[in-house]
Amino acid sequence: MDLLKKKIREEGVVLSDSVLKVDSFLNHGVDPQLMDAIGEEFAGRYGDESITKVLTIESSGIAPGLMAALKLGVPMIFARKRQSLTQSEGLITSKVYSFTKKEENTISVSGKYIHEGDRVLIIDDFLANGQAAWGLIDLAEKAGAEVAGVGIVIEKSFQDGGGNLRQKGYRVDSLAEIESLEAGRIKFKEDKAAEANLS
Amino acid sequence: MDLLKKKIREEGVVLSDSVLKVDSFLNHGVDPQLMDAIGEEFAGRYGDESITKVLTIESSGIAPGLMAALKLGVPMIFARKRQSLTQSEGLITSKVYSFTKKEENTISVSGKYIHEGDRVLIIDDFLANGQAAWGLIDLAEKAGAEVAGVGIVIEKSFQDGGGNLRQKGYRVDSLAEIESLEAGRIKFKEDKAAEANLS
Repeated sequence: MDLLKKKIREEGVVLSDSVLKVDSFLNHGVDPQLMDAIGEEFAGRYGDESITKVLTIESSGIAPGLMAALKLGVPMIFARKRQSLTQSEGLITSKVYSFTKKEENTISVSGKYIHEGDRVLIIDDFLANGQAAWGLIDLAEKAGAEVAGVGIVIEKSFQDGGGNLRQKGYRVDSLAEIESLEAGRIKFKEDKAAEANLS
Repeated sequence: MDLLKKKIREEGVVLSDSVLKVDSFLNHGVDPQLMDAIGEEFAGRYGDESITKVLTIESSGIAPGLMAALKLGVPMIFARKRQSLTQSEGLITSKVYSFTKKEENTISVSGKYIHEGDRVLIIDDFLANGQAAWGLIDLAEKAGAEVAGVGIVIEKSFQDGGGNLRQKGYRVDSLAEIESLEAGRIKFKEDKAAEANLS
């Protein structure tokens, strides 16, 4: 997705060989037009998949998840990382370890809003080691729903989350795949393909 | 806003005289079409206000905030309740007590994304005692920005947040104002006006 990659190139900040900061347009500041385009892209890719729900996780998955759900014409549900005081009955939970925040969270979703018969598109902002994605898949499957695929805004292809998910047979659509952040440079997976085409 | 009030009447669950649960369409499950209409409504009300940024707070403010920002053609920023490990320089902070979660949070926003010259529309899902709204106003004003108004999806008019904000001269636009939740019944402020018109 060229618009997204352009934005990552222009505004992404490489903090280390494994950390890319995109808080100007994705997970603190949010570019609504870009989210609109991202939603359109996911809807285009999953338009024939009979999706009935988009499932994401607070907080940074909500913006791309909402736009995908809007374009697909289905409800969105965001899993919570912490339990709400007004949310209790029929809770489905899963444990997720966050390497970024160095803590384990129990994520949860109400069984009222996702259940047997649902075909779920999971959306998240980043895919790195895959912890959040596995947690969301676990929630959906515990609820009796079927996971149609995992839609990711930015995949760090140099970490093993995406590879593991695909190996287990899950469809993963990442709109930007980053092959390396070494030496402060953002190298997209497609850059390599483009280079190969030139030779 | 009739569409919103219809949804509240049909799906809102009164948990006590002060707690209304709307997690089927606003703060767990999210109805994207309704968020779209809510964004349109806020954009209509603030279209002439030269808004440059929408400021909201994770997590439940993100969906209505994003749609308002999309319709106004401006970026959205969501304040964080907890500090991200990749977010540090130029942080502006404010303390907010959550009566729902019974804890004090330090909310924060990066000074890079909101600053002098900005005209800010603050958006949140609920307005009750006003703690979150005051926290967001504090962040915007500490950043040197001007607060054009506070846009709220559901105001509990029987709590004093909205009254205090208006008394201090802030413009507050609430799309649904709930006058009472007594006896398990959702009574909108407008219901009274409508009743008065009938007499």
